[in-house]
Parts: sequence; C-alpha cells; structure tokens
Amino acid sequence: MSSFSFDISHRDGRARRGRLTLPHGVVETPAFMPVGTRGAVKAALNDSLEALGAEIILGNTYHLHLRPGDDLIARRGGLHRFMGWDRPILTDSGGYQVFSLARMCRITDDGARFQSHLDGTEYMLTPEKAADIQAQLGSDIAMVLDECPPWPADEAAVRGAVARSALWAARARARYLSIKDTGVESVLATNPGQAQFGIVQGGTFQQLRMTSAEMTIAVGFEGYAIGGLSVGEPPEAMYETLDGTVERLPDAQPRYLMGVGMPDDLVEAVWRGVDMFDCVLPTRNARNGQLFVKRGLINIKNARYAEDDRPIDPDCACPVCRRYSRAYLRHLFTAGEMASAALNTLHNLHFYLDTMRRIREAIVFGTFGSFRQDFLQTFSRTLIKD
Amino acid sequence: MSSFSFDISHRDGRARRGRLTLPHGVVETPAFMPVGTRGAVKAALNDSLEALGAEIILGNTYHLHLRPGDDLIARRGGLHRFMGWDRPILTDSGGYQVFSLARMCRITDDGARFQSHLDGTEYMLTPEKAADIQAQLGSDIAMVLDECPPWPADEAAVRGAVARSALWAARARARYLSIKDTGVESVLATNPGQAQFGIVQGGTFQQLRMTSAEMTIAVGFEGYAIGGLSVGEPPEAMYETLDGTVERLPDAQPRYLMGVGMPDDLVEAVWRGVDMFDCVLPTRNARNGQLFVKRGLINIKNARYAEDDRPIDPDCACPVCRRYSRAYLRHLFTAGEMASAALNTLHNLHFYLDTMRRIREAIVFGTFGSFRQDFLQTFSRTLIKD
Repeated sequence: MSSFSFDISHRDGRARRGRLTLPHGVVETPAFMPVGTRGAVKAALNDSLEALGAEIILGNTYHLHLRPGDDLIARRGGLHRFMGWDRPILTDSGGYQVFSLARMCRITDDGARFQSHLDGTEYMLTPEKAADIQAQLGSDIAMVLDECPPWPADEAAVRGAVARSALWAARARARYLSIKDTGVESVLATNPGQAQFGIVQGGTFQQLRMTSAEMTIAVGFEGYAIGGLSVGEPPEAMYETLDGTVERLPDAQPRYLMGVGMPDDLVEAVWRGVDMFDCVLPTRNARNGQLFVKRGLINIKNARYAEDDRPIDPDCACPVCRRYSRAYLRHLFTAGEMASAALNTLHNLHFYLDTMRRIREAIVFGTFGSFRQDFLQTFSRTLIKD
Repeated sequence: MSSFSFDISHRDGRARRGRLTLPHGVVETPAFMPVGTRGAVKAALNDSLEALGAEIILGNTYHLHLRPGDDLIARRGGLHRFMGWDRPILTDSGGYQVFSLARMCRITDDGARFQSHLDGTEYMLTPEKAADIQAQLGSDIAMVLDECPPWPADEAAVRGAVARSALWAARARARYLSIKDTGVESVLATNPGQAQFGIVQGGTFQQLRMTSAEMTIAVGFEGYAIGGLSVGEPPEAMYETLDGTVERLPDAQPRYLMGVGMPDDLVEAVWRGVDMFDCVLPTRNARNGQLFVKRGLINIKNARYAEDDRPIDPDCACPVCRRYSRAYLRHLFTAGEMASAALNTLHNLHFYLDTMRRIREAIVFGTFGSFRQDFLQTFSRTLIKD
C-alpha cells in the first residue's frame, strides 16, 4: 500500500484540496478524469492530454475486456504500456456498461451474465472477475463491481441493489487481496501498487445511502466512490443525496463521484467534499459541436458562427482558442473534418481541467465560497447564443 | 514579385537542392506538400504538421470554393488566417476535382460547367474564375486551370487538351496580372505576393509534352508544373515522360510534379530534376491502416500485429514510433478510434517528409545516386509482411 496515499493540504468549508499519490504519479485534487473508453480518450492524443494537464484518465473495463482483451493487454505489460500513457489510470468495474450497453443482461447474486454488444459472445462478470480484469489491466485505481439501479427505481429495488453491492464489495476486496498477497492463477497482475475503491449506492434514498456507506466502509477500501447519481434525477436531488452521503465517508480518504457531470455539478460536488470526477460530457459534447464557454454551451454548427472571427472563448488560454476562429471551427464541423472533433475535444477538456485548477486554487486561498457563487451565477447548463 | 524567389544551392546529376522563398516563408526543396483538401490536412492538426517539418501544404480550390466559399475566406483575411496556418500554401486550380468529382461536367473552350457534388448547385469554372478564387484564398502559389485528360486517352484527345490548356494558361496569366496590377472588381485578393505556376500536359506523348512545355513557357510563370501523370499509366511511362518533359523546362525555376506519388516515385522524379510534390497517398493510406516502412507498406489491421510490441518501424524517429506499438495501433484501428487515423497519419507524413529530408541531404553531399539505388532496392510499393 506504500504507493498509495492521500494528503489533504487545505480545507475550505467541506471542500478539500489534496494530493493523491499513485504508482504512476501524483494527482492534484479535486481532479477531473477524462474518459478513455477503449484505451484512448476519443479524438485526443496522449501528448495533447499531457499538455492540457490531465493527471489521470479513466479506462473502461467492459470495453477493454471485450476488445482487445485484458489477457492481451496484460501480455503487453498492462494498460499503461499498451496505450503509451505513463500517468495514473483509474478503471471502472465494467458493471455500468454491462447493465446499459450489453445485450441480454441477467443479474444474480453471483454476478452478471451478458452478451457482448460487438458480436453476441456470452460473458460472465462477477466481483472476482472484475477484480481479475482490472489487475491484468494494471490500473492505479480499480473499482469494485456494484449494481447501479436505473432511475427512477422503487425503494425495494434500490435496497436490493445496496445489499447485493455490499456482498459484491466484500468478494471484490477478498479477491483483490488474494491477487496482491498470494497471486491468483491465470491472473497476470501488472501493477503491484494498484488501489481499490468501494462504491456507495442507494439512489436518492438517504437511509439506503447511509446503510450502503456503512457496509462499504466496513469492508475497507483505499477510497470510496459515490455511484448511481447523475442517472436522470434532478440536480437538486443529486446535491441533497451528496449532502447526506459524503458526511458518512471517512474524512481522510479520497471520494469519487462517478460519471458526473456538468461543470456546475463539479463545483457543487466539490463544495460538498468530493475529490474526484469522471464524465464523458466534455468529449462527447465536443464531437457533437457543443463547446463550453463561461456562460454555458455554444453549438458551433450554428450558422451565426459562419463569419465569427472570435475564438470560442476570448478569455480561454487553450491551444484551440489561441489559434482558431469560430468561423473555422464551424467550417470543420460542417465539412465533417476529423480536426473538428480533435479541436473541439481539446477545448472542452481544457475547460474542465481549467475549472478544476481554479477550484483547487480557490480552496487554497479560502475563496471557494465566492468562486462557487460567481460560477453558478455565470454558468448555465444550456445552449446559449453568444 | 519580390516575395518570390528560387535559388538552387546544390546539384547532383539532374537533381537539385533549392530554397523556394514565398510570402509566408521558405521551403527547402525538393519538397513534399501534405494535402489539406478542405482547409485541413485530414486527421492532422497544424501544430503536428509544424512539428513534423511540413513547410508548405496544399489547399483544394474546388472544395474551398464550394464550402465555405472563397468569398467567406477572403472576408476572414484569406486561407492562411482562416485555417490558422502561417506557413506557405499552394492551391490547385480546382480543375482536377471538377473533372473527377463534380457531376455533369461539360468542358468548352470557355471553361468547365459542373454541378457541386455536395448539393447539385451549378457552377462555372473558367481560367479567370480559378485565378479569382485563388487570389481570394491568398495562397502563396496559385495554379492555372488546365485540362487533364483521363488515361488512357488517344493522341487527338490529348492534343486537344494541350491546346486548350495553353489557351487557358494565357487567360489565367492575364487575369492574374490584372488582379495584381489594377485589381479586379469583386475579387478581394488577400496575398499580394502570390505566385502563379503554369502546367504542362501531354499525357505520355513526348511530342505533345514538348509542345505543351513550349506554349506554357511562352506565357511565362514563376514556376512550372507537370500535370496528367500518375493517372493510371505504368511507372516506367511516367518516368520516361518526365525524362522528356523536365529538360524542356527553364532550369532556374521550380518544377512541380502534381499528385505524385509513391515514395519511389518521389525519388525517381527528383532524380529527373523535379523540385515539388503533393499527394494524398500518405494521408489516405493512413486512414486505411496502410503504413509506410522502409521495405514497403504494412497493413496495421492484420491479425499478425495484434501482439506485436514493436513500433511501426524500429528505426523511425516519428512521435508515433517513439511511443506506440503495432499492437496498440491495430487495436485503435479495429476499434474505430479516431486516434487511429491521427497517429497513422502522423507516421506516414513523417515518412514522406523524412524521405525528402534524406533526399535533400544526399543531393548536398553528392550521394543521391547511391541513395536512389539503395532506396529502390529496399522499398517496394506493395503490402509486405513484416
């Protein structure tokens, strides 16, 4: 465990400014993790991500297990070597994609049986298997398999998912420790310093969140994630749930809000004590031509930008805003040039990573409260005319 | 004309090592120009092109005229400012795309009437119009409109194209000079130092090539291109035609072989006195997974590379070969990740630009003869197993 540590250097209200030390490097928190689904952040190259200051990225266990396969990646020396990325990587458990993307998914206490969305091949994902795959991928942080019920779900269904997730958490931890301590036959672990995070479920039911937190903490992990939010519930319900959940988590360990979110969500969650985030929004919106600016989102394909010589955001210091006009970016989008996705992605990731930098700075200076007010007053999560 | 000059510093046989000075900078020759069809080199960003050492790129007049329109680009200050590229640009006349890509193309002595391949809108491209569009784009080198007959074509058809191209060349030059001297109403010229090259046609008929060269030279241009080659004829026919054509061109002016070609074509053409090239092969092949290596081309999607930890070419110094394995590049191609096209394109363009660097060096050292022999013995223009 020597390669894992989390140190909180500053606090501002419930917000924390920390440093997460992982086998592949240090991550300044609060941190945003760009999503590298299939061993690559879509439309972004590694050197651009490094230049933007991405200190950790996320890899999708489901996708990599199916193609090219974690066995193949382990034989290459693990995901870091395979994809030529030397900085930290967090991998999810694969569960979310199994439930949302795979075909014919059947969940039992044992795990989830499903068919690949690629070719229909049948697979079985258990808590142990999810740990094995991630050990082979060799991510710096592995996530336990959990059951994330859809929203809305009734309380009984969510209670069942909480119970099952706790059961799975214990099995995942046992497997993780076996791999570390004695090794497990047929599992080629490629990162001896890998950490493992548990996941708190419970929908928007405060009592269930509390139960889930207690049971997950009882198992004991290096960090704790909050799952099952930003799945359709209103933002206020998410913030309220966060209020009740974060305070149940150990203060000294990192807290990761999974799959969140819009920029104002990040600010609100940091305000409530969250340290880590991942989300496809900046990269997916980029490919759809939706670009983040101070006041919201602009749609670059809009005809109003055809002769607009301004950068996306005149105050933005990103390499795209320093070089290209909205008129050019609109042309690239309209023409279907790959440079469109690439440049849009750079800008949006810069927006997210820069927002996190400003959040960290505000916490250090003890001004996060006013930063938050300014941000929420300025930014609206809608398409704007600008 | 002060912003245009061409200085030959070294000769090795018929091969020349020169410097082409253009309004936006100096181009070391022999030079290869990556093709930026629609205001962007497909799957490559400007800063990558700069880092690879691309000193000049090509823009397609046909595509830019249709979308976003040269009027719009002129209002932005010209193509350089529009696409954020400060180095030299050469634009073609649009003719080749009109003949090969547009619908319902009808050619008369006046010009070519055609329908846009995008939406069927009818356009007319005349020698004057091609000059006007390129003046608005503001490229450093504009090309005259010519008629490029398909291959094979009978001698009468090629003779007709030669005659018409000579007629068009005179009209294109007159228009170019009018724009420069007095300006032309409704033409917003964005690069006062633009040069204009004539084009020699004549298929593989030596006598017609001679006639075309004489008539084009009689008009008088800053440089001369050889068009209508690499359109299907065997390489030997191209080299033979080059032998007879290049010697008819003024020694002191740059010679540009249009749309050529495979790496061995570049070596053979430099050997015969050519200074400039453009071709979509490195970028298009990259997107199809075909990567250039010393001995030929490899197809990265081949299953043999699934567990191949070597870079594309162990001796290559490009940013892709320094960081990524064949196994990873095969995965990206198979998964359909955009990074596949981006990385493959970087490697292939590096191969072409590096080949030109080595050619220039060999000419300086007077060793181009042995370089050529080595190159032709090593490189085969076929898919190889490696």
